[in-house]
Amino acid sequence: MDLYDAMSTQRAVRRLRPDAIPEPVLAKVLAAAAWAPTGGNVQPFRMITVTDRQKLSVIQKLYQTQWSIYTESMRAEGDGLALPRQKMLRAGDYLAANMHEVPVLVVVCFNANLMAITDADLDRPSIVGGGSVYTAVQNLMLACRAEGLGCVLTTLLCYQEQEIKALLEIPEEWGTCAAIPIGYPVLKGYGPISRRPIDKLVFDNVWGQSASLGETHG
Amino acid sequence: MDLYDAMSTQRAVRRLRPDAIPEPVLAKVLAAAAWAPTGGNVQPFRMITVTDRQKLSVIQKLYQTQWSIYTESMRAEGDGLALPRQKMLRAGDYLAANMHEVPVLVVVCFNANLMAITDADLDRPSIVGGGSVYTAVQNLMLACRAEGLGCVLTTLLCYQEQEIKALLEIPEEWGTCAAIPIGYPVLKGYGPISRRPIDKLVFDNVWGQSASLGETHG
Repeated sequence: MDLYDAMSTQRAVRRLRPDAIPEPVLAKVLAAAAWAPTGGNVQPFRMITVTDRQKLSVIQKLYQTQWSIYTESMRAEGDGLALPRQKMLRAGDYLAANMHEVPVLVVVCFNANLMAITDADLDRPSIVGGGSVYTAVQNLMLACRAEGLGCVLTTLLCYQEQEIKALLEIPEEWGTCAAIPIGYPVLKGYGPISRRPIDKLVFDNVWGQSASLGETHG
Repeated sequence: MDLYDAMSTQRAVRRLRPDAIPEPVLAKVLAAAAWAPTGGNVQPFRMITVTDRQKLSVIQKLYQTQWSIYTESMRAEGDGLALPRQKMLRAGDYLAANMHEVPVLVVVCFNANLMAITDADLDRPSIVGGGSVYTAVQNLMLACRAEGLGCVLTTLLCYQEQEIKALLEIPEEWGTCAAIPIGYPVLKGYGPISRRPIDKLVFDNVWGQSASLGETHG
């Protein structure tokens, strides 16, 4: 699949069929994740492919609890909620109710001791550690797109990290930073995406100065 | 370009020619970044394309200072340093000495107030905010690969964030999380990459249990 075709149609797919993923296909998307660049080429991440139904049931309950809390304020808006948010909410409800039936959930772990987190001591939230993990996560998700597999990056399970670590026997020094359910889409899956035009996202030399990149605004 | 071809040959390119990048090509790689998924589709990042020679000179000096500090212990190892690290060091020295001559440096900013950082209160370094930025950074770098443009993800400038923010007039509530020099490669640029086999990176259901993904080990 063409790189730009994959990127320009990569959207979150939250309704996933329980049908099995052929092992070579799963191996291919995981290999794509492993190709990603990381700081110092250290690859400070590991991926646990969770397929065990009992473990997935435990995870589904934890996820549904967090999803309910996370979406409480959205639900309170009722019909006032913007349509794209309503759609996201319904799809998310489906995922939360069915996470135990996805063919595989990839839990991504990282070890901060293996990272140079250059913004760790700044007086603002630190995110730089993510630079050596989410490159791999994006490769994984783009490869899923190419294989016709739906997936979505979720992070709500971090609120229950101790429970997840106990369940999957993750060592003390490793954290979790993503859980990615993967499966064939229930509906049509991928398609057009809605993003801001790049002139809202790109500045020329100083903050707020429009970049002259007119060709690609459309 | 094929998605897997791009990913499997994407390596850090630190020796960049000063030659200009045609504007439509630059627009294309920035648009690819904008396509990336982010939490709640909020796109809590902005990209500043720095091409101003005076600003780049200031940045180059800041970067070189941090690069010298960062690599001090590597240099102390002398010939004992592993060959891949020696190569990285030499290429990095080139970048540090020539960063003011790259055709464009993309400084990536983020706003933590627009993110749901689910691991913010855990008793370990937080990295989840990166999940809404480095997906875009990876798209940007993969698109560079497809266009024959070299680039590398750097984060050392975070050590000088206040100086960078003042120079680029970045508002108080925004942080910086990546600086990506982009240009045509001096040498051959992309090519084979060296990564761990995926059986070292993927576990089956519990930490440490080998996944049976034999087909792609090679």
